[in-house]
Amino acid sequence: MDNHLIVCGRSYEDLLITIQRFHGWPAPGVVIGGLMVDLAQEHIGPDVKADAIVETIRGLPDAIQLFTPCTYGNGWMKVVDWDKFALTLYDKKTLEGIRVWLDIEKSRRFPDIYNWYMRLTPKKDLPLDVLLKSIQEAGRHVLSSAPVRVVHYYGKNKKGRIEICSKCGEAYPASQGDWCLSCQGKGYYK
Amino acid sequence: MDNHLIVCGRSYEDLLITIQRFHGWPAPGVVIGGLMVDLAQEHIGPDVKADAIVETIRGLPDAIQLFTPCTYGNGWMKVVDWDKFALTLYDKKTLEGIRVWLDIEKSRRFPDIYNWYMRLTPKKDLPLDVLLKSIQEAGRHVLSSAPVRVVHYYGKNKKGRIEICSKCGEAYPASQGDWCLSCQGKGYYK
Repeated sequence: MDNHLIVCGRSYEDLLITIQRFHGWPAPGVVIGGLMVDLAQEHIGPDVKADAIVETIRGLPDAIQLFTPCTYGNGWMKVVDWDKFALTLYDKKTLEGIRVWLDIEKSRRFPDIYNWYMRLTPKKDLPLDVLLKSIQEAGRHVLSSAPVRVVHYYGKNKKGRIEICSKCGEAYPASQGDWCLSCQGKGYYK
Repeated sequence: MDNHLIVCGRSYEDLLITIQRFHGWPAPGVVIGGLMVDLAQEHIGPDVKADAIVETIRGLPDAIQLFTPCTYGNGWMKVVDWDKFALTLYDKKTLEGIRVWLDIEKSRRFPDIYNWYMRLTPKKDLPLDVLLKSIQEAGRHVLSSAPVRVVHYYGKNKKGRIEICSKCGEAYPASQGDWCLSCQGKGYYK
């Protein structure tokens, strides 16, 4: 076990506390996410302004938001809902970057991590503290990385013209048609 | 101007600092988002476990993530990409909640806010500090709210069976087919 593991400038204990504070609990996925961000940042270097793409909506986006300047709301982090445990940090100017993923083949050496990720062990049979110790032990040994060039999902979210919906009176993007999406029947509320 | 404005338990100055630290700058949308969360939380009450739905990917998700326990990665915040400046906090048990939005009609009394939101004034003609002062002055007077019952987008993101992609060897959800989405040609990287 690496008791001197430093992840994103923090001790492992501080990493868990930081994650708990934001995410609500020290979720294994966010902890591994911290290790992934740490590895990606080392490759990218400290002087590069990097944007992020995350390949799952589960856990991992919070690691990006906690340990990089990228957030969902500032647009520097994009999320694609592929349910793959991978992320990319890339130079927003050159689009060159590094993709890091949980390498499931490598994780076989750490059965708790493998079983957790593959959803093979019921939660009650794999206590959180045991899993978190396995992750600390594994460190980067469960990760792989490769240089990539980003070809989609980069750049700013475009802003369009805003109009007032003639049905509900709320502001909405004119590109959506005569009414806002909610008044078109796509709302989530009654 | 309300110099004693308290937003989500913070002075206006602290609100701006908190936002800057996470979001990168005190973006007007996130600041108004703080006011919206504050109003929604007052309606919901302190004892209710509330989930969130946000109706734009711009700015507002960061207000939810900063001032509620809901984050993108923990699944308690859902985001629909409608480009409407609205959010809902709702009781995750009863699905009853409150929707709060920037009321564009009310914002006419505060021309800086109206012109900013409707994208009528070029950024260079509306300095950030002036806009932030207008927002402080306006407080809740630019917001409206209504009780809602959430009928979509609630509940947990479902987890499916995980398999190993026979092409790239990475773990992916079996539901996506024989190969992972990236190997199906939908990747964002080369």
